[in-house]
Amino acid sequence: MEFSYLQPGRPAIFKDKFVTKVNECLASYTDGARGEVGLIGLPFSKTSISMSQASDAPKYIRACLSTFSTFSGERDKDYKNFKVLDFGDVQVHPTDMEESIERLRISVGEMLAKKASDRYILLGGDHGVSYPSIRAFGEHYGEIGVIQWDAHHDVRNLEDGGRTNGTPFRSLIEGGHLKGENLVQIGIRDYANAKVYHDYTKEKGITVFTMDDVENTGIVPIIKKELDRLSKSVDFIYLSVDMDVVDQAFAPGCPAIGPGGITSRELLTGISAAASHPKVKAMDIVEIDPSKDFRDITSRLAAAAMLRFMFNH
Amino acid sequence: MEFSYLQPGRPAIFKDKFVTKVNECLASYTDGARGEVGLIGLPFSKTSISMSQASDAPKYIRACLSTFSTFSGERDKDYKNFKVLDFGDVQVHPTDMEESIERLRISVGEMLAKKASDRYILLGGDHGVSYPSIRAFGEHYGEIGVIQWDAHHDVRNLEDGGRTNGTPFRSLIEGGHLKGENLVQIGIRDYANAKVYHDYTKEKGITVFTMDDVENTGIVPIIKKELDRLSKSVDFIYLSVDMDVVDQAFAPGCPAIGPGGITSRELLTGISAAASHPKVKAMDIVEIDPSKDFRDITSRLAAAAMLRFMFNH
Amino acid sequence: MEFSYLQPGRPAIFKDKFVTKVNECLASYTDGARGEVGLIGLPFSKTSISMSQASDAPKYIRACLSTFSTFSGERDKDYKNFKVLDFGDVQVHPTDMEESIERLRISVGEMLAKKASDRYILLGGDHGVSYPSIRAFGEHYGEIGVIQWDAHHDVRNLEDGGRTNGTPFRSLIEGGHLKGENLVQIGIRDYANAKVYHDYTKEKGITVFTMDDVENTGIVPIIKKELDRLSKSVDFIYLSVDMDVVDQAFAPGCPAIGPGGITSRELLTGISAAASHPKVKAMDIVEIDPSKDFRDITSRLAAAAMLRFMFNH
Amino acid sequence: MEFSYLQPGRPAIFKDKFVTKVNECLASYTDGARGEVGLIGLPFSKTSISMSQASDAPKYIRACLSTFSTFSGERDKDYKNFKVLDFGDVQVHPTDMEESIERLRISVGEMLAKKASDRYILLGGDHGVSYPSIRAFGEHYGEIGVIQWDAHHDVRNLEDGGRTNGTPFRSLIEGGHLKGENLVQIGIRDYANAKVYHDYTKEKGITVFTMDDVENTGIVPIIKKELDRLSKSVDFIYLSVDMDVVDQAFAPGCPAIGPGGITSRELLTGISAAASHPKVKAMDIVEIDPSKDFRDITSRLAAAAMLRFMFNH
Amino acid sequence: MEFSYLQPGRPAIFKDKFVTKVNECLASYTDGARGEVGLIGLPFSKTSISMSQASDAPKYIRACLSTFSTFSGERDKDYKNFKVLDFGDVQVHPTDMEESIERLRISVGEMLAKKASDRYILLGGDHGVSYPSIRAFGEHYGEIGVIQWDAHHDVRNLEDGGRTNGTPFRSLIEGGHLKGENLVQIGIRDYANAKVYHDYTKEKGITVFTMDDVENTGIVPIIKKELDRLSKSVDFIYLSVDMDVVDQAFAPGCPAIGPGGITSRELLTGISAAASHPKVKAMDIVEIDPSKDFRDITSRLAAAAMLRFMFNH
Amino acid sequence: MEFSYLQPGRPAIFKDKFVTKVNECLASYTDGARGEVGLIGLPFSKTSISMSQASDAPKYIRACLSTFSTFSGERDKDYKNFKVLDFGDVQVHPTDMEESIERLRISVGEMLAKKASDRYILLGGDHGVSYPSIRAFGEHYGEIGVIQWDAHHDVRNLEDGGRTNGTPFRSLIEGGHLKGENLVQIGIRDYANAKVYHDYTKEKGITVFTMDDVENTGIVPIIKKELDRLSKSVDFIYLSVDMDVVDQAFAPGCPAIGPGGITSRELLTGISAAASHPKVKAMDIVEIDPSKDFRDITSRLAAAAMLRFMFNH
Ligand SMILES: [Ca+2]
Ligand SMILES: [Ca+2]
Ligand SMILES: [Ca+2]
Ligand SMILES: [Ca+2]
Ligand SMILES: [Ca+2]
Ligand SMILES: [Ca+2]
Ligand SMILES: [Ca+2]
Ligand SMILES: [Ca+2]
Ligand SMILES: [Ca+2]
Ligand SMILES: [Ca+2]
Ligand SMILES: [Ca+2]
Ligand SMILES: [Ca+2]
Repeated sequence: MEFSYLQPGRPAIFKDKFVTKVNECLASYTDGARGEVGLIGLPFSKTSISMSQASDAPKYIRACLSTFSTFSGERDKDYKNFKVLDFGDVQVHPTDMEESIERLRISVGEMLAKKASDRYILLGGDHGVSYPSIRAFGEHYGEIGVIQWDAHHDVRNLEDGGRTNGTPFRSLIEGGHLKGENLVQIGIRDYANAKVYHDYTKEKGITVFTMDDVENTGIVPIIKKELDRLSKSVDFIYLSVDMDVVDQAFAPGCPAIGPGGITSRELLTGISAAASHPKVKAMDIVEIDPSKDFRDITSRLAAAAMLRFMFNH
Repeated sequence: MEFSYLQPGRPAIFKDKFVTKVNECLASYTDGARGEVGLIGLPFSKTSISMSQASDAPKYIRACLSTFSTFSGERDKDYKNFKVLDFGDVQVHPTDMEESIERLRISVGEMLAKKASDRYILLGGDHGVSYPSIRAFGEHYGEIGVIQWDAHHDVRNLEDGGRTNGTPFRSLIEGGHLKGENLVQIGIRDYANAKVYHDYTKEKGITVFTMDDVENTGIVPIIKKELDRLSKSVDFIYLSVDMDVVDQAFAPGCPAIGPGGITSRELLTGISAAASHPKVKAMDIVEIDPSKDFRDITSRLAAAAMLRFMFNH
Repeated sequence: MEFSYLQPGRPAIFKDKFVTKVNECLASYTDGARGEVGLIGLPFSKTSISMSQASDAPKYIRACLSTFSTFSGERDKDYKNFKVLDFGDVQVHPTDMEESIERLRISVGEMLAKKASDRYILLGGDHGVSYPSIRAFGEHYGEIGVIQWDAHHDVRNLEDGGRTNGTPFRSLIEGGHLKGENLVQIGIRDYANAKVYHDYTKEKGITVFTMDDVENTGIVPIIKKELDRLSKSVDFIYLSVDMDVVDQAFAPGCPAIGPGGITSRELLTGISAAASHPKVKAMDIVEIDPSKDFRDITSRLAAAAMLRFMFNH
Repeated sequence: MEFSYLQPGRPAIFKDKFVTKVNECLASYTDGARGEVGLIGLPFSKTSISMSQASDAPKYIRACLSTFSTFSGERDKDYKNFKVLDFGDVQVHPTDMEESIERLRISVGEMLAKKASDRYILLGGDHGVSYPSIRAFGEHYGEIGVIQWDAHHDVRNLEDGGRTNGTPFRSLIEGGHLKGENLVQIGIRDYANAKVYHDYTKEKGITVFTMDDVENTGIVPIIKKELDRLSKSVDFIYLSVDMDVVDQAFAPGCPAIGPGGITSRELLTGISAAASHPKVKAMDIVEIDPSKDFRDITSRLAAAAMLRFMFNH
Repeated sequence: MEFSYLQPGRPAIFKDKFVTKVNECLASYTDGARGEVGLIGLPFSKTSISMSQASDAPKYIRACLSTFSTFSGERDKDYKNFKVLDFGDVQVHPTDMEESIERLRISVGEMLAKKASDRYILLGGDHGVSYPSIRAFGEHYGEIGVIQWDAHHDVRNLEDGGRTNGTPFRSLIEGGHLKGENLVQIGIRDYANAKVYHDYTKEKGITVFTMDDVENTGIVPIIKKELDRLSKSVDFIYLSVDMDVVDQAFAPGCPAIGPGGITSRELLTGISAAASHPKVKAMDIVEIDPSKDFRDITSRLAAAAMLRFMFNH
Repeated sequence: MEFSYLQPGRPAIFKDKFVTKVNECLASYTDGARGEVGLIGLPFSKTSISMSQASDAPKYIRACLSTFSTFSGERDKDYKNFKVLDFGDVQVHPTDMEESIERLRISVGEMLAKKASDRYILLGGDHGVSYPSIRAFGEHYGEIGVIQWDAHHDVRNLEDGGRTNGTPFRSLIEGGHLKGENLVQIGIRDYANAKVYHDYTKEKGITVFTMDDVENTGIVPIIKKELDRLSKSVDFIYLSVDMDVVDQAFAPGCPAIGPGGITSRELLTGISAAASHPKVKAMDIVEIDPSKDFRDITSRLAAAAMLRFMFNH
């Protein structure tokens, strides 16, 4: 078109020719494409117990990728040719919640059916999206193990409010989609859960690490030990990262913020440790409400966690 | 690709099949395309006297178009087939200001050279962008008339700081690109200008309407009278809308906000009155700093003004 | 209990013994109680098209009542003995939307069945709550007339997303709960609606006043004329006040804010004019999202509107 | 000192050589100095009924003067040689409230005793400062008239909380410092006052104009009539401007904001009308809490009101 | 009353039948009632040196209790039957500061006289409230020890401003209500105090632990050692927690925020360590100004600290 | 002038007679004056790649000095007689960027030429100011060493955008003003840089410590070792502190915030360790944009860092 300084349809931003921003690694999925990681947005949070705009998070986290480059100095390695296949966001229904949950499951399943990647990132949404997501992974891969980063057990009863963001792991276990012994919970906090659900985790054989455990043992040793254990019984390990596992000072944009959680450095080293295990092949990041955040600090942390999952493999 | 609820590369938003949002009228310019209105972003504000992020406004104003539909009930007319050719944003230089101003002039000129539309909207940026923009229009169309909506004269001297956002109309007049008698200023406020520049407007034959004039005469009669007068001597009339002409309660996102300006209703009826004149063929909107705004109120008002220019023609 | 400066269970706030704050007029409903106005909260907004926290509004609007006193100087009349029976807020379901809408209808109906008041105020929630609310009024009172204050027609099709906040008047008309000729819409804005819904209002005999009508005729004459007309065919008139009818400068806390709406003074004089008509017996106020507001400006305006409805009767 | 671009002790800001900013008219008082207007800050708000940081307002309002120039285009007159003698802010006591009020009275009196100006501006603080201020003026000038711009009567009883910001005019009248018939209240709002205080204004012969009066008669005619009347019995008229007389959309930074007040244009034309009367010689501006404001909109409006008082004389 | 989904007078919130929120443990004090902990609000901050709205904190901290449950997983213990007797907030005087301080002392004393609990939590307010509070405890219990968590010594002279929030421990020592050797200060920061007050702490035998001490020794060892020492000479130990001991990143809502303080985890483990000592029977939490906070992060931390005091006993 | 409570020209603030605030140590430079530290503001950020208001930081950081006192309890030493000579802020040009950079260099040089202090603090501005600043130091002192605290290398190519805030150390090295082996970078983060610039640091012999190095080795040991090394080859060591080296939770006001950086305690102990070395004689602090900060947390941290540099010498 021969314009000197215009490129219709493209944003006009300053570009250093030697820098690749991580968002440049993303490519919308097209038939037959392949990429190291498949990415999908699960923008659904209407079933949150408290009103949540976590459904906006996929947009914000993707946008934060442009604040990171593809180069790791620690490893002296540039991931500029790494390809993230972006399957886009699932279109949910404005008023039919069951329908929306089903659409999430179907969509994750359709993504997996393409066999376009070996590893996947799923961006919630509230934690409710992990139920259809992990279910879809189970349908595709069989027995799977889950490491859940969370201040909360998320095994609430289903009678009091249906499938909310407090129930995903109950739903998975009750539905036979996940075995209790294949679920590890890290970062569980005092005065953030109920005895009956604590008892439920015991009864189902869920392995629980509290914040005292993290303080005393360190997050990396915990993760390494559990990956070892899980990898003996499952072939596929899924990380489910509820960002409220992080202290409110480091992740102020979660709906259920609170003090006494892990730091941003602990999160990033923990994810790196997990991501380097060959059986860790999927990660969701949930419970970020961008409307409550400050300067997208929480979405930036989520994007940084994505990079550890993708590149510190 | 046979996904049920995914469309990679497309946002997943709720869609009422009977509603056309104004952003759907925008199409990126491609060779040979034609549209009722050409649109260009002039994202430049580094020469503002006070630090300004008005360079972000084109992105925000375009985004606000999605909060409006194409239908006018007052006229019972749907503009859903109206086509806005979007030429994108000019790529400016991060450190060379003269170069950037020149790029703006060249880019507006290149857009006009395509003869793809008969009418144009230009989104600043600070008011400094009107100098290269109007200059480019003058180079293309010859003698032009300008109606400037502004609390300020913008005819500062060029010695004290070079071409800032306080100098565009001085630059145009001194450069011979605009005759003083072809410039009309509306909404000029007390205690917002200097005597020497007031005297300059008189000396150059600029027609000035103060806020007292607006209160006493009404904005629509003023505009009609001046369009009548201007249209006798020029073929092309350009509206230059500095949003700080609006009272700070209605446009809180301008860098130089202040009390005692026009209301949002006065702005919209004024733009409508002007847009219906056949010789009014271009409009710029400048001096919105989205980082200072509240809920994009000022960008929304700018988008509403765009619709009046486009549709109330 | 003989404490000097403590009253366990009561807030410790400064009290001028001669001032009655409007919140002091509220009394929780108990069996057999009677009051001039019945008040109910409809804290539901999960079916909003855009994510909305309008469900929080009943709490905020009630709280704002404490910033107003019971005395009208214009009328030299003190309403300190006026009694507002507060029925509380409806408990909605976190994940079952149809169930929630039904609960709203049942609850409004149960309130009316108590026959404890002659007039009612209903606090949304998004505009979706007007469907079950007006339906319940219809079931109780028979043919009713509605004056809707809104920038939007709210007669969207029900196929694209079910019963959202864009559909209440469509739902009422299609369900036979409201006749088109008994519905008056005031404040409808250009570029905020779709042609097909504009046509629908014509087809159904809905009376529509646009913002141009408000500017040209004045809001009080419009309301008086329509109350006259409606009161010939109905015995009960319901005001449905979507706060986005007000300009974004005066009501910045609505989800769908925009420029060019009515002012706060126009709203208050309009409500006063309507409230003085003997057949106007109910009012809902909807579409305030307190999380988006500035200093509760929009909730304060809603509370002021409540006072006009209650006292300027 | 021969620095090229440094002037230690002076801020480094861009300066257009032809523009005089209003802050440049301010000079700290020194012995024997004279100026057209004397300025004093009364930074006291600890006796506010609700916690208020109005004590910060003098700093913010003075700062806003730098956003205005000295030139009036309406009058084609430059006030660049106008001199405002700044007496600084009164040092109040952190814990002794009576002492602080006395310090305010003494300080205003000491300023007046200097006879350095003929007209004065006093910047609160909350409205409580008008009691010591007007008392000091009375002690100096004898019988004075007051025009109070306010949504509230401010004649609360003194028993319930001592001298708060709700009592200044009661204190003045009860103390014999002001006659009821010399007090005019403009902008009084419905549901913002109590009957007993309304009755008190009648009993004391206070002249009250409500918002309905402002709507029906216009603010300028009201002010002209009352100045005429007052000027027959007093030689000195004091304007006491509680910014909450302005609608919350135009003055969002007042502690007691509310809807239905006057607009910024009404305030400015009203002050201009009052300031042009030869007996209007003092003005206080009170009840701005900068910590609650948005972009200093309310302080900017206060500064604009100062200019009308100073220059539109 | 037979409503299906309404409970007039009760908030309508989602309830998981197996979860007890900590706010459910609160019961307003009634004659003869007993509870494990007595709770009182001391909503007073007008004597703060800088304007502070810390008087609002009791309301906010209580509200944050609803974000925590009663179950500790670390101890596998549910405190759902724990009873907190809430004595409400002290009614202070709007303009008489001495009177207000006296009311605080009297009210704490009256609470203690009820002998309804063995342990107490007091919610400020600014740190000035610890003077009347600790005095009242001394009057009731005799010799007491105090562990003060603070960046500041708070032993300012009383001449310069009376009893401000900078003087409580000076007031207590000078008044003979507390012995210097029974006062321990933890978290004192460099460049936040004055030499003369540092010297005063030495002279009076106050034990001071700086941030360097915390870094080098650890907060738990310090606390254990000091509790050991204090418990030899006193029977009653009172924790006075000025939240500004915490780093500004973790407690951004304190009036006197600053960098280099303790983390939220250090605070919580420190309080837990202290609370488990049998002689630690009271705790105040002061210096939170909710109007300056972000998402109530600081009030949430305060509530979490309350739980450690109450339950980790 | 004999005012009781007024001091025209001086702010009226509460003063504890025993406390010296650090801002009281500042004195504007006058001819012949001497001080322990020379201070200069470099308020320039228009060449930032992303729009930045870091040019406002000098004003904010200076203001934060008033929140600190001069006394160190750790050292039991009062620095109340310490004198900081303030040379003010450099007047930059609004539109000529090259001219502005030259003015910065000239002004720093003119300050050094006065030989009024032995040590210096320079307040940016963006990191671009370190180029003219360090150049001026080099011109005055000869060979110098630099310890750069930064998440980024800042050695971008100069072709793509001229001298931006991403290029200062490239400019210094290429211009021969700084040797690569005399530059130490601490806190470099993964995914925040590009391989080509990483390689450039190697090629030029720059010593780089990543965040992993900081975690593994500790910041104080790193600094001590490097000071040892540098002090063998240079006589003058300059600290260049880009505040984005700090984690976004502790320094939320930097333009390029991100997770995984150092804590505020690490920054302060690191600066203290560096400042105590006799050859460390200058420090700049850059990349704070006060308009993006929360409660000036980042400027407060910068002021605290200044104190460590000044006093922990
Ligand atoms: Ca969860
Ligand atoms: Ca969680
Ligand atoms: Ca302009
Ligand atoms: Ca302007
Ligand atoms: Ca509606
Ligand atoms: Ca609407
Ligand atoms: Ca008042
Ligand atoms: Ca008032
Ligand atoms: Ca303290
Ligand atoms: Ca403290
Ligand atoms: Ca840097
Ligand atoms: Ca950096």
